[in-house]
Amino acid sequence: MSAKTDTEVIIGGKVFTLSGYESEEYLQKVASYINNKVNEYGKVDSFRKQPLDTQNVLLQLNIADDYFKAKQQISLLEEELKAKDTEIYDLKHELIASQIKLENTEKNLKNLQNEAMRNPKK
Amino acid sequence: MSAKTDTEVIIGGKVFTLSGYESEEYLQKVASYINNKVNEYGKVDSFRKQPLDTQNVLLQLNIADDYFKAKQQISLLEEELKAKDTEIYDLKHELIASQIKLENTEKNLKNLQNEAMRNPKK
Repeated sequence: MSAKTDTEVIIGGKVFTLSGYESEEYLQKVASYINNKVNEYGKVDSFRKQPLDTQNVLLQLNIADDYFKAKQQISLLEEELKAKDTEIYDLKHELIASQIKLENTEKNLKNLQNEAMRNPKK
Repeated sequence: MSAKTDTEVIIGGKVFTLSGYESEEYLQKVASYINNKVNEYGKVDSFRKQPLDTQNVLLQLNIADDYFKAKQQISLLEEELKAKDTEIYDLKHELIASQIKLENTEKNLKNLQNEAMRNPKK
Protein backbone atom coordinates (compact mmCIF):
# COMPACT_ATOMS: atom_id res chain seq x y z
CA MET A 1 0.00 0.00 0.00
CA SER A 2 1.33 3.42 -0.89
CA ALA A 3 1.96 6.02 1.80
CA LYS A 4 -0.58 8.68 2.73
CA THR A 5 0.23 11.92 0.95
CA ASP A 6 -1.08 15.47 0.71
CA THR A 7 -2.04 16.71 -2.74
CA GLU A 8 -3.09 20.23 -3.60
CA VAL A 9 -5.81 20.57 -6.20
CA ILE A 10 -7.58 23.66 -7.49
CA ILE A 11 -11.35 23.43 -7.80
CA GLY A 12 -13.45 26.39 -8.87
CA GLY A 13 -10.35 28.58 -8.43
CA LYS A 14 -9.83 27.58 -4.77
CA VAL A 15 -6.94 25.47 -3.48
CA PHE A 16 -7.83 22.31 -1.57
CA THR A 17 -5.34 20.05 0.16
CA LEU A 18 -6.45 16.44 -0.12
CA SER A 19 -4.92 13.90 2.22
CA GLY A 20 -5.11 10.26 1.24
CA TYR A 21 -3.66 7.24 -0.47
CA GLU A 22 -4.62 8.18 -4.01
CA SER A 23 -1.91 9.24 -6.44
CA GLU A 24 -1.46 12.89 -7.26
CA GLU A 25 -2.22 12.04 -10.90
CA TYR A 26 -5.55 10.47 -9.99
CA LEU A 27 -6.61 13.37 -7.76
CA GLN A 28 -5.73 15.92 -10.44
CA LYS A 29 -7.82 13.96 -12.92
CA VAL A 30 -10.80 13.97 -10.55
CA ALA A 31 -10.33 17.70 -9.83
CA SER A 32 -10.11 18.49 -13.52
CA TYR A 33 -13.32 16.54 -14.14
CA ILE A 34 -15.13 18.64 -11.50
CA ASN A 35 -13.67 21.88 -12.91
CA ASN A 36 -14.99 20.97 -16.36
CA LYS A 37 -18.46 20.56 -14.84
CA VAL A 38 -18.14 23.89 -13.01
CA ASN A 39 -17.11 25.60 -16.27
CA GLU A 40 -19.88 23.93 -18.28
CA TYR A 41 -22.52 24.92 -15.75
CA GLY A 42 -21.04 28.40 -15.41
CA LYS A 43 -22.06 29.10 -19.00
CA VAL A 44 -25.73 28.36 -18.25
CA ASP A 45 -27.69 31.49 -17.20
CA SER A 46 -30.39 29.60 -15.31
CA PHE A 47 -27.66 27.89 -13.26
CA ARG A 48 -25.76 31.07 -12.40
CA LYS A 49 -29.00 32.65 -11.13
CA GLN A 50 -29.37 29.94 -8.46
CA PRO A 51 -28.10 30.51 -4.90
CA LEU A 52 -24.64 29.03 -4.32
CA ASP A 53 -25.83 26.10 -2.21
CA THR A 54 -28.36 25.16 -4.90
CA GLN A 55 -25.59 25.34 -7.51
CA ASN A 56 -23.53 22.99 -5.36
CA VAL A 57 -26.34 20.46 -4.99
CA LEU A 58 -27.03 20.60 -8.75
CA LEU A 59 -23.36 19.87 -9.38
CA GLN A 60 -23.48 16.98 -6.93
CA LEU A 61 -26.56 15.61 -8.67
CA ASN A 62 -24.86 15.88 -12.04
CA ILE A 63 -21.75 14.03 -10.86
CA ALA A 64 -23.91 11.41 -9.13
CA ASP A 65 -25.78 11.00 -12.42
CA ASP A 66 -22.49 10.19 -14.18
CA TYR A 67 -21.80 7.66 -11.41
CA PHE A 68 -25.18 5.96 -11.74
CA LYS A 69 -24.90 5.88 -15.54
CA ALA A 70 -21.51 4.17 -15.09
CA LYS A 71 -23.08 1.70 -12.66
CA GLN A 72 -25.75 0.88 -15.25
CA GLN A 73 -23.00 0.23 -17.78
CA ILE A 74 -21.27 -2.07 -15.26
CA SER A 75 -24.51 -4.08 -14.93
CA LEU A 76 -24.79 -4.40 -18.70
CA LEU A 77 -21.16 -5.47 -19.04
CA GLU A 78 -21.60 -8.03 -16.25
CA GLU A 79 -24.62 -9.47 -18.07
CA GLU A 80 -22.60 -9.65 -21.29
CA LEU A 81 -19.81 -11.45 -19.42
CA LYS A 82 -22.30 -13.97 -18.03
CA ALA A 83 -23.66 -14.63 -21.53
CA LYS A 84 -20.12 -15.15 -22.86
CA ASP A 85 -19.33 -17.53 -19.99
CA THR A 86 -22.37 -19.60 -20.96
CA GLU A 87 -21.26 -19.57 -24.60
CA ILE A 88 -17.74 -20.71 -23.59
CA TYR A 89 -19.20 -23.47 -21.41
CA ASP A 90 -21.41 -24.71 -24.28
CA LEU A 91 -18.57 -24.55 -26.82
CA LYS A 92 -16.27 -26.54 -24.52
CA HIS A 93 -18.91 -29.22 -24.12
CA GLU A 94 -19.52 -29.36 -27.86
CA LEU A 95 -15.78 -29.59 -28.46
CA ILE A 96 -15.36 -32.45 -25.98
CA ALA A 97 -18.32 -34.30 -27.51
CA SER A 98 -16.83 -33.87 -30.97
CA GLN A 99 -13.40 -35.05 -29.78
CA ILE A 100 -14.84 -38.17 -28.12
CA LYS A 101 -16.78 -38.99 -31.30
CA LEU A 102 -13.60 -38.47 -33.32
CA GLU A 103 -11.63 -40.76 -31.01
CA ASN A 104 -14.22 -43.53 -31.30
CA THR A 105 -14.44 -43.18 -35.06
CA GLU A 106 -10.64 -43.32 -35.33
CA LYS A 107 -10.65 -46.45 -33.17
CA ASN A 108 -13.25 -48.11 -35.41
CA LEU A 109 -11.32 -47.11 -38.50
CA LYS A 110 -8.10 -48.56 -37.10
CA ASN A 111 -9.80 -51.84 -36.18
CA LEU A 112 -11.25 -52.14 -39.64
CA GLN A 113 -7.90 -51.32 -41.22
CA ASN A 114 -6.21 -54.04 -39.13
CA GLU A 115 -8.90 -56.48 -40.12
CA ALA A 116 -8.50 -55.59 -43.80
CA MET A 117 -4.77 -56.25 -43.50
CA ARG A 118 -5.45 -59.68 -42.06
CA ASN A 119 -7.93 -60.39 -44.87
CA PRO A 120 -6.35 -58.86 -47.95
CA LYS A 121 -8.43 -58.45 -51.10
CA LYS A 122 -8.01 -61.12 -53.71
CA MET B 1 -38.58 8.95 -25.48
CA SER B 2 -40.42 9.75 -22.26
CA ALA B 3 -41.82 13.22 -21.62
CA LYS B 4 -39.99 15.86 -19.64
CA THR B 5 -41.24 15.88 -16.07
CA ASP B 6 -40.64 17.76 -12.83
CA THR B 7 -39.57 15.72 -9.83
CA GLU B 8 -39.16 17.01 -6.30
CA VAL B 9 -36.28 15.55 -4.31
CA ILE B 10 -35.03 16.41 -0.83
CA ILE B 11 -31.28 16.80 -0.46
CA GLY B 12 -29.71 17.87 2.81
CA GLY B 13 -33.20 18.76 4.06
CA LYS B 14 -33.91 21.16 1.20
CA VAL B 15 -36.46 20.57 -1.57
CA PHE B 16 -35.16 20.71 -5.15
CA THR B 17 -37.35 20.50 -8.25
CA LEU B 18 -35.52 18.62 -10.98
CA SER B 19 -36.74 18.97 -14.53
CA GLY B 20 -35.72 16.34 -17.04
CA TYR B 21 -36.35 13.05 -18.79
CA GLU B 22 -35.22 10.79 -15.98
CA SER B 23 -37.82 8.76 -14.08
CA GLU B 24 -38.88 9.87 -10.61
CA GLU B 25 -37.59 6.54 -9.27
CA TYR B 26 -34.13 7.15 -10.72
CA LEU B 27 -33.90 10.72 -9.39
CA GLN B 28 -34.98 9.62 -5.90
CA LYS B 29 -32.28 6.94 -5.98
CA VAL B 30 -29.63 9.52 -6.92
CA ALA B 31 -30.91 11.95 -4.26
CA SER B 32 -30.88 9.24 -1.62
CA TYR B 33 -27.29 8.34 -2.55
CA ILE B 34 -26.23 11.99 -2.03
CA ASN B 35 -28.15 12.20 1.27
CA ASN B 36 -26.31 9.12 2.51
CA LYS B 37 -23.01 10.85 1.73
CA VAL B 38 -24.18 14.03 3.49
CA ASN B 39 -25.16 11.99 6.57
CA GLU B 40 -21.92 9.99 6.55
CA TYR B 41 -19.81 13.13 6.31
CA GLY B 42 -21.99 14.93 8.86
CA LYS B 43 -20.74 12.48 11.49
CA VAL B 44 -17.11 13.45 10.88
CA ASP B 45 -15.94 16.32 13.13
CA SER B 46 -13.12 17.47 10.83
CA PHE B 47 -15.65 17.75 7.99
CA ARG B 48 -18.22 19.72 9.98
CA LYS B 49 -15.53 22.23 10.96
CA GLN B 50 -14.92 23.16 7.30
CA PRO B 51 -16.66 26.15 5.70
CA LEU B 52 -19.81 25.20 3.79
CA ASP B 53 -18.31 25.69 0.33
CA THR B 54 -15.36 23.46 1.26
CA GLN B 55 -17.81 20.83 2.52
CA ASN B 56 -19.59 21.01 -0.82
CA VAL B 57 -16.39 20.57 -2.82
CA LEU B 58 -15.32 17.64 -0.61
CA LEU B 59 -18.69 16.00 -1.27
CA GLN B 60 -18.26 16.59 -5.00
CA LEU B 61 -14.80 15.04 -4.86
CA ASN B 62 -16.15 12.03 -3.00
CA ILE B 63 -18.95 11.46 -5.52
CA ALA B 64 -16.52 11.98 -8.42
CA ASP B 65 -14.25 9.39 -6.77
CA ASP B 66 -17.12 6.85 -6.86
CA TYR B 67 -17.59 7.73 -10.53
CA PHE B 68 -13.92 7.23 -11.41
CA LYS B 69 -13.78 3.96 -9.47
CA ALA B 70 -16.80 2.79 -11.49
CA LYS B 71 -15.04 3.85 -14.70
CA GLN B 72 -11.99 1.79 -13.69
CA GLN B 73 -14.27 -1.18 -13.16
CA ILE B 74 -15.78 -0.61 -16.62
CA SER B 75 -12.27 -0.74 -18.14
CA LEU B 76 -11.52 -4.00 -16.33
CA LEU B 77 -14.81 -5.55 -17.43
CA GLU B 78 -14.20 -4.46 -21.02
CA GLU B 79 -10.79 -6.13 -20.92
CA GLU B 80 -12.37 -9.31 -19.54
CA LEU B 81 -14.94 -9.23 -22.34
CA LYS B 82 -12.18 -8.90 -24.93
CA ALA B 83 -10.34 -11.90 -23.45
CA LYS B 84 -13.54 -13.95 -23.52
CA ASP B 85 -14.16 -12.97 -27.14
CA THR B 86 -10.70 -14.28 -28.01
CA GLU B 87 -11.41 -17.50 -26.10
CA ILE B 88 -14.72 -17.95 -27.97
CA TYR B 89 -13.00 -17.32 -31.30
CA ASP B 90 -10.33 -19.92 -30.53
CA LEU B 91 -12.85 -22.49 -29.29
CA LYS B 92 -14.96 -22.06 -32.44
CA HIS B 93 -11.90 -22.65 -34.61
CA GLU B 94 -10.89 -25.71 -32.61
CA LEU B 95 -14.44 -27.04 -32.84
CA ILE B 96 -14.58 -26.58 -36.62
CA ALA B 97 -11.18 -28.28 -37.01
CA SER B 98 -12.36 -31.20 -34.90
CA GLN B 99 -15.62 -31.49 -36.88
CA ILE B 100 -13.78 -31.50 -40.21
CA LYS B 101 -11.41 -34.20 -38.95
CA LEU B 102 -14.41 -36.20 -37.71
CA GLU B 103 -16.16 -35.89 -41.07
CA ASN B 104 -13.09 -37.13 -42.95
CA THR B 105 -12.55 -39.99 -40.54
CA GLU B 106 -16.21 -41.00 -40.87
CA LYS B 107 -15.86 -40.90 -44.65
CA ASN B 108 -12.77 -43.14 -44.51
CA LEU B 109 -14.53 -45.52 -42.15
CA LYS B 110 -17.56 -45.75 -44.44
CA ASN B 111 -15.40 -46.44 -47.50
CA LEU B 112 -13.57 -49.18 -45.66
CA GLN B 113 -16.85 -50.66 -44.44
CA ASN B 114 -18.21 -50.71 -48.01
CA GLU B 115 -15.04 -52.36 -49.18
CA ALA B 116 -15.24 -54.98 -46.42
CA MET B 117 -18.78 -55.79 -47.50
CA ARG B 118 -17.63 -56.32 -51.06
CA ASN B 119 -14.80 -58.57 -49.82
CA PRO B 120 -16.36 -60.56 -46.99
CA LYS B 121 -14.14 -62.54 -44.66
CA LYS B 122 -13.83 -66.19 -45.42
